[in-house]
Amino acid sequence: MGRWEPDARGRLATAALELYSERGYEQTTVAEIAKRAGLTERTFFRHYADKREVLFAGSGDLQELFVRAVAGAAESVAPVDALAAGLDAVSEVFVDRREYARQRHAVITANAELRERELIKLATLSAALAETLRRRGVAEPAASLAAEAGVAVFKIGFERWIAASEEREMSQLMRESLNELKAVTMGGEVASPRISEGSHPVL
Amino acid sequence: MGRWEPDARGRLATAALELYSERGYEQTTVAEIAKRAGLTERTFFRHYADKREVLFAGSGDLQELFVRAVAGAAESVAPVDALAAGLDAVSEVFVDRREYARQRHAVITANAELRERELIKLATLSAALAETLRRRGVAEPAASLAAEAGVAVFKIGFERWIAASEEREMSQLMRESLNELKAVTMGGEVASPRISEGSHPVL
Repeated sequence: MGRWEPDARGRLATAALELYSERGYEQTTVAEIAKRAGLTERTFFRHYADKREVLFAGSGDLQELFVRAVAGAAESVAPVDALAAGLDAVSEVFVDRREYARQRHAVITANAELRERELIKLATLSAALAETLRRRGVAEPAASLAAEAGVAVFKIGFERWIAASEEREMSQLMRESLNELKAVTMGGEVASPRISEGSHPVL
Repeated sequence: MGRWEPDARGRLATAALELYSERGYEQTTVAEIAKRAGLTERTFFRHYADKREVLFAGSGDLQELFVRAVAGAAESVAPVDALAAGLDAVSEVFVDRREYARQRHAVITANAELRERELIKLATLSAALAETLRRRGVAEPAASLAAEAGVAVFKIGFERWIAASEEREMSQLMRESLNELKAVTMGGEVASPRISEGSHPVL
């Protein structure tokens, strides 16, 4: 970025989120975002491909950070603890960004296309974490299941962190959510062959 | 369905999947599906809203079956065992449908729009299961985490079941996947405050 546009990228992101919150995502144009940020449309397109990308530009960095922390955990560490290290690393990035995250989440929740994009983001993260665990020597299906569990903890922990009255740190909520998942998963033995009362015989 | 069109719905579904597999989903038209099934376009639209719906028409039934089994599990049963009952109930429906499921999965994997739709289906299932668990008295975040875990097991167990050389029953693979998830989740204690080597101090 040239010094004639100090933090253009950040100003555009802030302006975009303000407008999405005020008027709705669909109703906001790139021209309006640029104007609110005191910049030109041309500058907008130098930083973002389109108005959706403003909301998802950080996804790649987030995934890289998560993956790097999992990959970098000590070799002796179990998959679930490597994932916990990833959750910790990600939590640090969000310190001081709760209000932004709340607004972003509200915008995404209100729009079907954005909700889909968010689901894709999480599915992509899960695939990347599974690959990272396989490289750590974790076999399938354990690697994919652990990755899905890690993403579930991230998703639920994140939603708790942005809840209206929540003030605890993200890292704490992630750790609590992971412990909750352990507790609920251990809740009982898998029934064999089945315990459903309404089930019908095999066709 | 009138008797002059015996199993029109099933014939359309079979014809659609054949064509999607042969020519690709995008390249196939409703007219071609109807023709292959020996029916008219009008009949197609009496059964399906569009060509995508042919692939997802069963999603609602699947979710209802899963939810009903979870809701119907004995009150004393832990959330994870209620989910196991749901996985068992769902597995019964897929008996004798492995080849169809394999073809459907291949078609969906090859198309971004269909992959998104599949993600939405799973997210909707997760939300419905969480709601069902809350009605069983499970508190948050345990209900949402357990639901996400149940969907993860369903997803991974399903992928194992349709793998090329796999011959074991779906119910067995679901049970194994659930046990794998338990094992991998229990793999160690959650580190506190963090174990990542490359992590940087809180900003």
